[in-house]
Amino acid sequence: MRILVLGGDGYLGWPTALHLSKRGNEVGIVDSLIRRHYDDEMGVSSLVPIRQLQRRVATWKEVSGLTIQPFIGDLQEYHFVHETLQSFEPDAIVHFAEQRSAPYSMIDREHAVYTQVNNVVGTLNLLYAIAELNPEIHLVKLGTMGEYGAPNIEIEEGFIEITHKGRTDVLPFPKQPGSFYHLSKVHDSHNIMFACRIWGLRSTDLNQGIVYGQQTEETAMHPDLVTRFDYDAVFGTVLNRFAIQAAVGYPLTVYGKGGQTRAMLDIRDTLACVELACLNPPEAGEFRVFNQFTESFSVRQLAEWVQRAAPVEVTVESIPDPRVEKEEHFYQAVTTKLPSLGLHPHLLGDELIVSLVELAMRHRDRVNFEAIRPTVNWRSTKSEVSVTGGSVGE
Amino acid sequence: MRILVLGGDGYLGWPTALHLSKRGNEVGIVDSLIRRHYDDEMGVSSLVPIRQLQRRVATWKEVSGLTIQPFIGDLQEYHFVHETLQSFEPDAIVHFAEQRSAPYSMIDREHAVYTQVNNVVGTLNLLYAIAELNPEIHLVKLGTMGEYGAPNIEIEEGFIEITHKGRTDVLPFPKQPGSFYHLSKVHDSHNIMFACRIWGLRSTDLNQGIVYGQQTEETAMHPDLVTRFDYDAVFGTVLNRFAIQAAVGYPLTVYGKGGQTRAMLDIRDTLACVELACLNPPEAGEFRVFNQFTESFSVRQLAEWVQRAAPVEVTVESIPDPRVEKEEHFYQAVTTKLPSLGLHPHLLGDELIVSLVELAMRHRDRVNFEAIRPTVNWRSTKSEVSVTGGSVGE
Repeated sequence: MRILVLGGDGYLGWPTALHLSKRGNEVGIVDSLIRRHYDDEMGVSSLVPIRQLQRRVATWKEVSGLTIQPFIGDLQEYHFVHETLQSFEPDAIVHFAEQRSAPYSMIDREHAVYTQVNNVVGTLNLLYAIAELNPEIHLVKLGTMGEYGAPNIEIEEGFIEITHKGRTDVLPFPKQPGSFYHLSKVHDSHNIMFACRIWGLRSTDLNQGIVYGQQTEETAMHPDLVTRFDYDAVFGTVLNRFAIQAAVGYPLTVYGKGGQTRAMLDIRDTLACVELACLNPPEAGEFRVFNQFTESFSVRQLAEWVQRAAPVEVTVESIPDPRVEKEEHFYQAVTTKLPSLGLHPHLLGDELIVSLVELAMRHRDRVNFEAIRPTVNWRSTKSEVSVTGGSVGE
Repeated sequence: MRILVLGGDGYLGWPTALHLSKRGNEVGIVDSLIRRHYDDEMGVSSLVPIRQLQRRVATWKEVSGLTIQPFIGDLQEYHFVHETLQSFEPDAIVHFAEQRSAPYSMIDREHAVYTQVNNVVGTLNLLYAIAELNPEIHLVKLGTMGEYGAPNIEIEEGFIEITHKGRTDVLPFPKQPGSFYHLSKVHDSHNIMFACRIWGLRSTDLNQGIVYGQQTEETAMHPDLVTRFDYDAVFGTVLNRFAIQAAVGYPLTVYGKGGQTRAMLDIRDTLACVELACLNPPEAGEFRVFNQFTESFSVRQLAEWVQRAAPVEVTVESIPDPRVEKEEHFYQAVTTKLPSLGLHPHLLGDELIVSLVELAMRHRDRVNFEAIRPTVNWRSTKSEVSVTGGSVGE
């Protein structure tokens, strides 16, 4: 297959592109490289140094003999989107190219508006380009389990059968997202569902849990091929962040009671899920939703697990929750579609935690401790996030 | 009360501003005047000539002795929003200031993106300005019954109690909007609900049906005070459009089978509903939804009613549906909250239809017949809408 990976320079986009390339697909990467700019803006950087996209692609060619074609540009520019699709002629498009941090979207008005416009307009442009050039293209879109929030009923995969006053229908599962970023994904989902209906497009919305881990089979092939590993409170996600905090002797920062339960998965399973989605496209006109996670944990459970498994002394500290969210709640979500397509998950284990902590220890001199504490407060319309001193950069 | 009416130069905003002014409130109007620009862009104009905002406000002062302060600017400009709220110090904000035509949003990519960015960013700016300046302000937001689409169960007011696998929760009613415009309103609703939750804002989302009628008690006080009356296929809404088609001897254009059933209300009830919402604000932090309509009709029913009631010979013509929608479907929606606050509806009757047709006959020389047929096709990503010859303008 010919597959374009949008956001292919990012934490998940890059390993996904390598994986799909290795598995025999013709892969192109589209990226505006703005993720690297967010680091500069925040004064932080990936704990593990990463190479520029051009070098990554060149090394991949040397190591694997395979070519990945990069297209550098912004999805908000329609001309660029149209030209890229026209020239690459993809069978499938994997779309990671959105601002993906909840705290970043909650910094202030400018960041909220930026996140929603960037994500929604980029996806609208993509839908129009697909409809105009080739409606057969399968759009594999990264959504998030956070679109559902934490309802008091079991979360289904995108749709729920509701019987009400003696009548029954299958309707989109109600959404209660918890940040302007999560909201942007809900907006996208509604827009994509509509485009499938009116233009007969085919799309898979992958409502992904929180990803942990940093190494995949392909990124391990050469130091130039590693992907990002974020520890800062804006872009670092929970388990990765805990591993790094453990490595540098910083208390694990649990927000509030820590009963927040989240769906999670190993980075290697992200790659497998995306590949399974690509290999099994929906019918023309079909908008389908897969819940993409393998296990659920509360934040407190994760902190205690890291404390138990890490090869170093670890303390846990509860700090006031900067988010507006339930700190204890019911959480149960269905995920049957990806397993039914053949997903064999990598479940969380001590070994993975140890490897993350050890990786972090090798790079501990790159940590700027100022960036660890959350400074973006959901209750405020404007938070100060600048990290004095910055970080070492790449 | 001090009430700001955003979009106060439009079809509903203007009569609402007059009504609220007449009822003893201190009223300000915020408008970018872009609705008039859409007319120029499309080559159409209101069947009834309307005055410029400055003249409208001056005549209102002469006729009623009451002052309405206009603020001309765009909600996408945060500085303007912030300054206006700071200077006017409203108790309530009635927000009509969005691009409100489904066909306009479906013309092409540019109009879809414009509609979503204009509506979503304008509302985000408003939410931030309210949160920063005075979270007590009650935001009365115009949504649409079209957010719900046409589910096979009864539509509740914003939220629905769902029992699923033995557990129960009250969740946002699932949304299935039918155009990029309707989608923008769904996006707004999600954003506003979230802002109420995190910042303790109070908001009423008025999911309004299709409005018909043109005259209100206040607009009838002077010819300078009349509001718009649109007959074109882009901005004209169904019953008003049928009345004008009848007046000029044009067949009533029913899309497809005409079984599309829609919630509707008289323009005078819009004013009453908005006033009731303002008089009965929700609690701090509460996001509530009112279904704002009084009756439901199918398009075919409306056409037949106009044919029966109009004082002229009327034919009905079924044309291919330019929209992607169900042409026959179950439709039932709850509306109890506004009646419980004291709404006494003006139900549709022959008299209103006759008055609309007669009004249209007085202005029939202003009709550009080219603008009557729908030219925006939902199935296409780009429709030609330019009307050669334009219209007479104001």
